[in-house]
Amino acid sequence: MLVGSIEAGGTKFVCAVGNEHGTVQDQIVIPTTTPQETLEQTVAYFQRFKLQALGIASFGPLEIDPQQKNYGYITNTPKLAWQNTDFVGPLKQALAVPIAWTTDVNGSAYGEYQQALATGEQLSSLVYYTIGTGVGGGAVINGQLLGSAGHPEMGHVLVKRHPNDLDFSGICPYHHDCLEGLASGPTFLARTGKPGTEVALNDPVWEIMSYYVAQALLQTTLILRPNRIILGGGVMGLEFLQKIRQQFKKLLNGYLTLPALDDYLQLPQVAGNGSATLGNLIMAAQQIPMTIS
Amino acid sequence: MLVGSIEAGGTKFVCAVGNEHGTVQDQIVIPTTTPQETLEQTVAYFQRFKLQALGIASFGPLEIDPQQKNYGYITNTPKLAWQNTDFVGPLKQALAVPIAWTTDVNGSAYGEYQQALATGEQLSSLVYYTIGTGVGGGAVINGQLLGSAGHPEMGHVLVKRHPNDLDFSGICPYHHDCLEGLASGPTFLARTGKPGTEVALNDPVWEIMSYYVAQALLQTTLILRPNRIILGGGVMGLEFLQKIRQQFKKLLNGYLTLPALDDYLQLPQVAGNGSATLGNLIMAAQQIPMTIS
Repeated sequence: MLVGSIEAGGTKFVCAVGNEHGTVQDQIVIPTTTPQETLEQTVAYFQRFKLQALGIASFGPLEIDPQQKNYGYITNTPKLAWQNTDFVGPLKQALAVPIAWTTDVNGSAYGEYQQALATGEQLSSLVYYTIGTGVGGGAVINGQLLGSAGHPEMGHVLVKRHPNDLDFSGICPYHHDCLEGLASGPTFLARTGKPGTEVALNDPVWEIMSYYVAQALLQTTLILRPNRIILGGGVMGLEFLQKIRQQFKKLLNGYLTLPALDDYLQLPQVAGNGSATLGNLIMAAQQIPMTIS
Repeated sequence: MLVGSIEAGGTKFVCAVGNEHGTVQDQIVIPTTTPQETLEQTVAYFQRFKLQALGIASFGPLEIDPQQKNYGYITNTPKLAWQNTDFVGPLKQALAVPIAWTTDVNGSAYGEYQQALATGEQLSSLVYYTIGTGVGGGAVINGQLLGSAGHPEMGHVLVKRHPNDLDFSGICPYHHDCLEGLASGPTFLARTGKPGTEVALNDPVWEIMSYYVAQALLQTTLILRPNRIILGGGVMGLEFLQKIRQQFKKLLNGYLTLPALDDYLQLPQVAGNGSATLGNLIMAAQQIPMTIS
C-alpha cells in the first residue's frame, strides 16, 4: 500500500510517501510561501506516486467538522496569506484519494501514540505539546483524536504570571496571559533580543518559560488524565524539559499518583522529527475503506 | 431488566432500582455514616430486588484501574472514615452481579449525555462540573468516560486569583490556588460566615466565584473542545450560571467559535438531581454481557 503525508508548517511542508505502517519511502521539503505556489508544488510531488490515501497535519486553526461548508480550510491563522485557505479541496481534486485532515499537533500525537503501541506499550491516551514558533497540543484518547466541537486549542490555556515576568506584555493578540503568548519561541526574542536556541541555559528566562509550560501540563493532567505527555517543538530540549519536570512536580504537590516524571513527560520518541509523518501515514491508511486497522 | 444505581455522596447515598433505559422504579436515601453501616444498609436495600447489574458513582478519589489491587476502593478522601475503603468488594460479594464503578461526576456526565441523546441531540462529548461541598468534573468523550491513568481531577485545576480575593487563604490542603480550594461551597462560609445558599445574589463574592469557575470552564474548553458543559451541584443556580457565562465570554475574548453560551454552558437537564442515577442505570445495563447497548 502507498499512502502520503503532509506535515504543513508555517515555514515548510514536509511531504512523504510510505506504507500503512508508517515506513517512509520518499520525502521532500517544500517551503511555505503562498497557498497557490506551495499547494501546486505539493500536488506535483504526490502526482509522481500512485497514492491510495493522504494524511494531512497542518498548522491551524482548521475547520475539521465535515458538516461545515469550509471543512478542510485553514481558517483565522495569523499567517495572513493562508487565512481561509481551502487546503483539502485542491488536493482532493488533483489526487482523487481519501484524505485524513487534522492539526499538526494531532498528527504528532497520533504518530507518538502509534510508536508507543509498536514498541509494546499499553497506552490508551497520549498528549503531544509543541513549544516552538507556535504553541499547541493535540491528544489521542482511547485511540481516537480528541476534539468534537473543533480541535483542541491547548496553546491558549491561561497561565498565571511568573513573579519575575509581570512586565512582559505577551504576544497573543487574544489573551494577555495564555501559554502561546508567554512561552512561544518569539517570546524569547521579545524578552532577550535573541532566539530561544541562542539563549544560554542558565538564563533566568528558562525558569519563567518552564513555569508556564508546567502549568499547562498540570491543567492537561487534571482534566484529561492521559497516560503520557510528549513535548516537542523548536525550543524543546532535554535541559528545558528537565526544568519543566521540576516545576510540574512543585505545582502538583503530591496530589496525584503519576508515573515517574521521566516517563510521564517525555521528548518525542519517533526519530528525526517524524512524529507527524508517522501519524499521517497511518491515519491515511485508515481512510481506505478495505483497510483493517 | 432490573439494574441498580448508587450515587454515593459525602452526606447521603441515593440508591435506586430501574431498567436499562434509566427509568427509576424504586429509590431510597441512606445517610453516609461509617462505611460498615452505610454499605450494610445499601446491600440490604438491593437484596430486596433481583438485580442483574449495578452502577456506582461515588465521591472520590477512587481507584478505577482494574489492574490495581485496590480497584473499587475510595482512596485518599478527606472524609477520614472512608479513606481506603473497599466499596465494590462488599457489594460484589453480597449481590454477585457485574458492577460499573466510577466517580460521581462521571456518572452525572454519563446521565446527562444519555439524556441529550434521548432527546435527539447529536452530541459526541459532554463535560459535567459540580460546584458544591466538593468541586469536580467528569466527561464523556466519543461516548466513553474520560480517564486512562485515573479519573479526571478537574476540581483541582489551577486558577488565577481575583484581584479582590488575594487575602483568602483557600481551603485545599494541596493547592493554594485551585478551583475547589477557592470556589467550593465551604469557601462561602469561610469568606462570608454564611453558607452559599444564604448569600445574597448581589454579594460581590459571587463575582469572585464566577471568575474562578469560568477559568476552569475555559481551560476545559481549550483542552477538550467538548460539545457542552453542564454545571450542577449544591451552590449552582441560574443566576450564578449567568454570571459564569459573562466571565467566560470575557476570558474567551472571541478566540473560538462556540455554540451560544446559553446552550454551551447549561444546568442539568435530567430532572430531580437524577443525572447520576440515570447514568448509573445505563452503565449498569451495559455491564451485562448479553446487552446490546
